[in-house]
Amino acid sequence: MPDLKTVAIEYAFQNKQRFLSQLMDFIAIPSISTDRERTGDIQRAAEWIATRLKNTGLQNIQILLTGGHPVVFAESINAGENAPTVLIYGHYDVQPPDPLNLWHSDPFKPEVRGENLFARGASDMKGQVMATISAIEAILHTSTLPINIKFLIEGEEEIGSPNLGAFISSHKDLLVSDFALNPDTGMISADLPTITYALRGLAYFELRVFGPDHDLHSGTFGGVVHNPAQALCELITGMHDQQGQVTLPGFYNKVRDLDETERQELARLSMDEDFYMNQTGAPALWGEEGYSPVERTGARPTLEVNGLNSGFTGEGSKTVLPSMAMAKISTRLVPDQDPEEVHQQFLEYLRINTPNTIRYEVIKLTGGTASISDLDSKGVQAMESALSDVWGKRPLFKREGGSVPVVAQFQELLNIESVNCGFSLQDDNAHSPNEKLHLPTWYRGIETYIRFFFNLVN
Amino acid sequence: MPDLKTVAIEYAFQNKQRFLSQLMDFIAIPSISTDRERTGDIQRAAEWIATRLKNTGLQNIQILLTGGHPVVFAESINAGENAPTVLIYGHYDVQPPDPLNLWHSDPFKPEVRGENLFARGASDMKGQVMATISAIEAILHTSTLPINIKFLIEGEEEIGSPNLGAFISSHKDLLVSDFALNPDTGMISADLPTITYALRGLAYFELRVFGPDHDLHSGTFGGVVHNPAQALCELITGMHDQQGQVTLPGFYNKVRDLDETERQELARLSMDEDFYMNQTGAPALWGEEGYSPVERTGARPTLEVNGLNSGFTGEGSKTVLPSMAMAKISTRLVPDQDPEEVHQQFLEYLRINTPNTIRYEVIKLTGGTASISDLDSKGVQAMESALSDVWGKRPLFKREGGSVPVVAQFQELLNIESVNCGFSLQDDNAHSPNEKLHLPTWYRGIETYIRFFFNLVN
Repeated sequence: MPDLKTVAIEYAFQNKQRFLSQLMDFIAIPSISTDRERTGDIQRAAEWIATRLKNTGLQNIQILLTGGHPVVFAESINAGENAPTVLIYGHYDVQPPDPLNLWHSDPFKPEVRGENLFARGASDMKGQVMATISAIEAILHTSTLPINIKFLIEGEEEIGSPNLGAFISSHKDLLVSDFALNPDTGMISADLPTITYALRGLAYFELRVFGPDHDLHSGTFGGVVHNPAQALCELITGMHDQQGQVTLPGFYNKVRDLDETERQELARLSMDEDFYMNQTGAPALWGEEGYSPVERTGARPTLEVNGLNSGFTGEGSKTVLPSMAMAKISTRLVPDQDPEEVHQQFLEYLRINTPNTIRYEVIKLTGGTASISDLDSKGVQAMESALSDVWGKRPLFKREGGSVPVVAQFQELLNIESVNCGFSLQDDNAHSPNEKLHLPTWYRGIETYIRFFFNLVN
Repeated sequence: MPDLKTVAIEYAFQNKQRFLSQLMDFIAIPSISTDRERTGDIQRAAEWIATRLKNTGLQNIQILLTGGHPVVFAESINAGENAPTVLIYGHYDVQPPDPLNLWHSDPFKPEVRGENLFARGASDMKGQVMATISAIEAILHTSTLPINIKFLIEGEEEIGSPNLGAFISSHKDLLVSDFALNPDTGMISADLPTITYALRGLAYFELRVFGPDHDLHSGTFGGVVHNPAQALCELITGMHDQQGQVTLPGFYNKVRDLDETERQELARLSMDEDFYMNQTGAPALWGEEGYSPVERTGARPTLEVNGLNSGFTGEGSKTVLPSMAMAKISTRLVPDQDPEEVHQQFLEYLRINTPNTIRYEVIKLTGGTASISDLDSKGVQAMESALSDVWGKRPLFKREGGSVPVVAQFQELLNIESVNCGFSLQDDNAHSPNEKLHLPTWYRGIETYIRFFFNLVN
């Protein structure tokens, strides 16, 4: 007679198509959190996922108000006090689909082509959320959950989770758990299962530069005022030195150095120059001198221009000397940098480097600290074993360049660590046109989560 | 018995309101030449002005096809072979009204507030065109024109007159004249009548920088590729040195130096630092070291960023590492710079300064050479006398920072000089929101043109 784990895995295998069909229904809701006109869709997505959790057999389903978009909560706490309690994090919001003209299919009409499902949110992270729910359904419909589960699924991750900290603080009793599972991370490639033990933090700003008090004719006035677009470019240029280091004053003061052991471990990831050349399609790589590509993205802080806008950007020519220019600029942080300190460093850089020919203002948009997990914890060990069984090889342990501020918030506010293991791939085009989910990997992910939940009590 | 000049001026005075009303009808047509969706309005504007010229009493009215928007031609050549023939230049197209939200009234519903008429094209240059036509109506309805007149009114000035050179070349016989009157210039202020004896040239480019072959997640990939927005900023920053000079290789090689006499003449213009501070509202002035503001805008070449665009520019934050970035960049040229040589210098700058981490392309948008007029010519003398009579003081002679490529084309293709005298003011917000025309100056402009036409035969 097969064990309960095997029975649940068999159920999941037989229900693959239904799981996929449900994921496609979820994805079809354009829950774009950056877009104020989409609050109706945000609400619909929250209700959809709450209903799905209820139908899966979870209890105490709640759609909880925050200062912004609601949080969906659900739990299954029938495994008893001696069983561990896992807090599963997710978000039901997605990035905007722009630029629309580069998509090969409608971003909100999910389409299977080959082994992939194409749609906004397929990989980041509606697919990951549905993998955990599908795994729980497989267990609940074939036996009982050996552990206690709580779900916290938010709707503001893509705008930096501005209300999540306050929500966690005011719901500490509801959320009390032994550790968290965070599926909002990915694998290096489809055949390399991966646990992410470190995540970068984020500090995101909008910088506005002002010159003349109205747009000017560039012929009549070109040459007597400091063009704000040029001045913005000069400020941005100065934010890196010739060695590719960020020049914000004190930016590296609190950066935790890599030791030789960790550098050797990271070197085993096979994320070499060729890997990054293939993933990005860039003409050549670039970055901070003295560090390998995987170190640059995972273990070193960086500063990126996310957007630029000034003057006339339409077709043809307009001889305008613009009165203002804007840049979206974000920094990725590593332990032990503090986003608020980086904010102050950004302001200090501008204070020192802005000439008297222009004015500027800074809008602080989002922020979150970096985090690192203990590799010997029960959660990480259970996941390592599950991944080994499904893929037939030990997983890799990597640092991730992206930011999951909630991991830092769970640590700080709930005093729990996170097991960061999701099944998105590097080439999934998260945040880009033609986002996709690799379906064979997704099905393996569902099996992995089933094994993981059972491993926690063995 | 009053002389014919006085009678015509009296007619113009009595018909002021009707002239204004006709101007408002003309302005209400949104003939935006940069906007491909406005070709119907461009055609309407051409027909409107052709009808107005016919009703004024001109002959041989023609709407002539070009490779782009049509040219309107009309003439009155009854003054005989011994009378001079003046070619009056104008354009019936206007700049786009963006950004719309900064207008206090609809840009295409002209509105009189105080002494000003507010609308796109009021000053640049439908008002100037209608001043010349109103002057001619005043003469034709009270006596006869003492000179021969030809009108060439084009519809592509605001997109750099891409088809005008070919049009002039293929209509040399039709356009044969003794000199041109170009009203597409302005006065320093309402009480300082001005003749513009030099105009800057233009070379306008779009620079596109490409990095990764698709937009990337700035967390996952920030730090390993050269961000195209950052790279664009670096290239733009390098286009000026610390002294405010343009660094395109060879840019100053052909620049005609200012001699001490001309510097003294320009210094008399009362266009000092305070003037430019008031006109621009900038926190401080800026520019090439060693030159006064009026020299910088009139007699020195400059390079301006007219627009920037990259990545995410909407509300809030999006953690994208953009795959491309774009800038609109234009140079203003002085004698004897050549726009095509400057194009080559721009390409050479990029060839030298672009790192191998990005790719780029340059789109050449528009260009035109600079020009200088002979101050002792019959046309300039007749205008100097007319302005002196209307304002009661001798006019100022200035260099203009803007570009009127047609002045250079008339010189080159028809072998005629231009008298550059229009009645726009520096604070008319040409090319900006809330463009306006100062009506008392406009009425004086009509009287000036009446006197000018009579002065040419006295």
